[in-house]
Amino acid sequence: MTQPIDPLARLTQLWHQTIPIAAQMGIRALDYDGDTLVTGADFEANRNLHGTMFAGSIYSHATLTGWGRIWLALEEAGLQGDIVLGEGRIRYRRPVTGHPQCRCSLQAVDVSPLQQGRNLKIPLQVTLGDAARFEGQFVVMPQR
Amino acid sequence: MTQPIDPLARLTQLWHQTIPIAAQMGIRALDYDGDTLVTGADFEANRNLHGTMFAGSIYSHATLTGWGRIWLALEEAGLQGDIVLGEGRIRYRRPVTGHPQCRCSLQAVDVSPLQQGRNLKIPLQVTLGDAARFEGQFVVMPQR
Repeated sequence: MTQPIDPLARLTQLWHQTIPIAAQMGIRALDYDGDTLVTGADFEANRNLHGTMFAGSIYSHATLTGWGRIWLALEEAGLQGDIVLGEGRIRYRRPVTGHPQCRCSLQAVDVSPLQQGRNLKIPLQVTLGDAARFEGQFVVMPQR
Repeated sequence: MTQPIDPLARLTQLWHQTIPIAAQMGIRALDYDGDTLVTGADFEANRNLHGTMFAGSIYSHATLTGWGRIWLALEEAGLQGDIVLGEGRIRYRRPVTGHPQCRCSLQAVDVSPLQQGRNLKIPLQVTLGDAARFEGQFVVMPQR
C-alpha cells in the first residue's frame, strides 16, 4: 500500500494498520491547523447497550486524539519517538448520541529532551464536545 | 438465541450482543467467587503499534470488568438498573504483552438506594495484573 503525503491521511492509515481496535472504531484524523487536531469516529461501531457511545470507546477516541496530536508535533520536528500513555483520567458529563468528534490543542512542543536522547513528558487535554473531558500524561521515548 | 443460565455466560453474551467493540475485543467473564470477577480479552485483537496492548483497550477491559461486577451484584439482588460510568482514572505501570486478565473485587453492595428509587453510587478498582490499575466511579440508575 502506498503511503499518503497528507499527514492526516498518514495518521489515519497508521492507526488503522497498527491498532485493530482503532480500525474497528472508525477513528480518523479530520482537521489540523497547526495547533488543534480534530478526529472523528463511527457512532454505530462504538455503541453500548444504552444506544449511546461506549465509555471505553470515548476514552480510546480521546487517547488516540492526544497520541495523534503528539505524532504530528514529532513529524513537524522531523523526530521519531515511541509515544506512550502513562496515565489517563476522564470525566463523562453527558451521553454521546451522535457522530463523535474529539479535539486536542497543543501549542509549540519543546522537543529538546528528545533531541538529547531523553524522555519527553507531555500532559494534555482532549475534549469530546461538552460530553467528556480527558486528561492524559504521555511520554515520548527516543527510538533506539 | 437462547439465554444461558450461567451468569458469567449471560454477562459475556450481553457484552457481545450490545457492545460491538466489546465483541471485537473478545472480552469474556471467566470466573466469579461472589466477591471477585475475573475477565479475559484477546491479545491480538487489542494490539497497538508497539506490539503490546493498546492503552484504550486496557481501559475498556477494566471498565467492562467493573461494569460486570456491578451487573452481577444487581442480578444477585434481583434488581434492575442502568449502570453508567461517571469518571475513570487509570495508571499504566508496564506494557501488557500476553493474554490480559482483569480483576474487580466488591464485597456486599448496599443496594437500598436503588430499591428506594434513587441512584446508587459505586466506586471501585480494577487491576490488570501489575500492569495497570483503574479506578472508576459508577452510578446505577433505577430503570423507569
